[in-house]
Amino acid sequence: MNSKKVIETIIKSHGPIKQVYWVACGGSLIDLYPAHFMMQSESSTIESGWYTSREFLISTPKKLGQHSLVVMCSHSGNTPESVEAAILAHKAGAAVITLTDCAGSKCDDPRFYTCVYPWGDDVPTLEIPSGISLSLAAELLYAQEGFAKYDAIYNGIHAMDTIVPAAKRKVQQELCEPFASLCAAHPFFYILGSGANFSQTYGFAICSLMEMQWQHCAYIHSGEYFHGPFEATEPGVFYFLQMGSGACRAMDERALAFLQTHTDQLMVLDTLEYGMDAVDPSVRDYLDSVLLYAMNVELRAARGRKLNHSPETRRYMGVETY
Amino acid sequence: MNSKKVIETIIKSHGPIKQVYWVACGGSLIDLYPAHFMMQSESSTIESGWYTSREFLISTPKKLGQHSLVVMCSHSGNTPESVEAAILAHKAGAAVITLTDCAGSKCDDPRFYTCVYPWGDDVPTLEIPSGISLSLAAELLYAQEGFAKYDAIYNGIHAMDTIVPAAKRKVQQELCEPFASLCAAHPFFYILGSGANFSQTYGFAICSLMEMQWQHCAYIHSGEYFHGPFEATEPGVFYFLQMGSGACRAMDERALAFLQTHTDQLMVLDTLEYGMDAVDPSVRDYLDSVLLYAMNVELRAARGRKLNHSPETRRYMGVETY
Repeated sequence: MNSKKVIETIIKSHGPIKQVYWVACGGSLIDLYPAHFMMQSESSTIESGWYTSREFLISTPKKLGQHSLVVMCSHSGNTPESVEAAILAHKAGAAVITLTDCAGSKCDDPRFYTCVYPWGDDVPTLEIPSGISLSLAAELLYAQEGFAKYDAIYNGIHAMDTIVPAAKRKVQQELCEPFASLCAAHPFFYILGSGANFSQTYGFAICSLMEMQWQHCAYIHSGEYFHGPFEATEPGVFYFLQMGSGACRAMDERALAFLQTHTDQLMVLDTLEYGMDAVDPSVRDYLDSVLLYAMNVELRAARGRKLNHSPETRRYMGVETY
Repeated sequence: MNSKKVIETIIKSHGPIKQVYWVACGGSLIDLYPAHFMMQSESSTIESGWYTSREFLISTPKKLGQHSLVVMCSHSGNTPESVEAAILAHKAGAAVITLTDCAGSKCDDPRFYTCVYPWGDDVPTLEIPSGISLSLAAELLYAQEGFAKYDAIYNGIHAMDTIVPAAKRKVQQELCEPFASLCAAHPFFYILGSGANFSQTYGFAICSLMEMQWQHCAYIHSGEYFHGPFEATEPGVFYFLQMGSGACRAMDERALAFLQTHTDQLMVLDTLEYGMDAVDPSVRDYLDSVLLYAMNVELRAARGRKLNHSPETRRYMGVETY
């Protein structure tokens, strides 16, 4: 998708965009979070909202209208509540961009600006939803307000294409086997992260582990950890900490210091040790999640091998009617 | 707090409010979520953001300024990152309202509009943070845009004072003992909810259970459940479902239908059976959480009695330095 051109076209036909709503379900929703997080922090005029599709349908923002942009993502292209949300937004007069892996799906509709993205191991970050959504946010900021980090974010998106493959090899060598062993020993564990990375904390839990491994776990925000959840920490309880490389890292560091002295079952994935030092510090908070997603994929695969549970296995999704 | 007067005063001195940020940590943050949720849905002009305090400090919205209102809540009045966030907001020119239980605390500062709220069993909903925050949101909507549900929300807040005591007795009779037994049998379980109630799904998990009972659990959004987490469901896995009484209930009903046929360990707290039918349907989504909080208190107390773990017990919070 040529994000620059799409945003320019939308602004030309809709006038200035006042609200962006990122709408999807599960893994697709997770991919849109860093762009939402960046908009919330970096925009001086545009509101940003992030919704699971059904909640967007039920509790639709009253503002939704001509000056709204809805970015909807559905990998299959046919997620019913996501398609319904996109149609609702279109009817309300909003500009609607849909991202899907499936040409000809319900997402791929002339009412929407549709991007059919490729999927697979070697697809550049800029061409998958986590990169596309950041580029859309960057172009919108640039076109309407100017965006001092414009070059930094694009350079960072490109840098991820080098960082991720190297990080995969490193995580395979260093973390995969110990992680799989910890999973085998713990029927339940906690995952911690913060900032935009919290999307991949959530995603590791609900997609990689609950969905693909039937592994019970809980996701906790590193900043919120000290306001309740840390009371459940003790030796024998397994914590997996995702440490960011940007400003939000301060929250993860505080959690690390506590965890190191209060449990003997701790695994840390520090993005700074996995190549994020090559990215401009001012945009690391928005890009760590690309790395963390790729690491989640490796870790779940390792667990699957150890416990003989392929990440492709489903017993309900796409199998039963619900 | 006279919310009407405070909002009028703020609008007079700051001009129209364009953004409201609800900022706090843990249980206090949870209390502010329904007001944020209502603003997001009902406002045609005002943006609403909801932040754990440290993240607000680190990833401060660029918009924060004269036309922003920050509502900060700290029960003790001295939560360091929350106090720091309020000071940051004040320095940026924003109007700052602080809610605290502690007169003379750092929250109770002449730079802020401070409400010192009472706490205890028989305090009216309108005088505690969950009610105050809704009244602030309602007054802001009313003053700047008009708000068709203005009377309905206030009538609903008052109705909670009758609904909650009756619901407490009912939950004590019907759910407390079975819940405590299920906790004794399950070292880990899932809690589901949606909409504004998701704050109490999260709150039940991180405050009532992890913090006050050292009970491992995970919180799942009912709408997101079908996009990953449901694959972990099977007989023997305990799910606690909080069902709302408003429009968001549709998400909980879908989860209910699946859970009833896919696990044999299910407990349902249906707010419609606990008195919420007395509230105007158009505002139930915003008020269920008041009921759910009170039920969480009863349920954790019952677990505490059964497993000899007082909800007042802490091993780290206020005990260690962290």
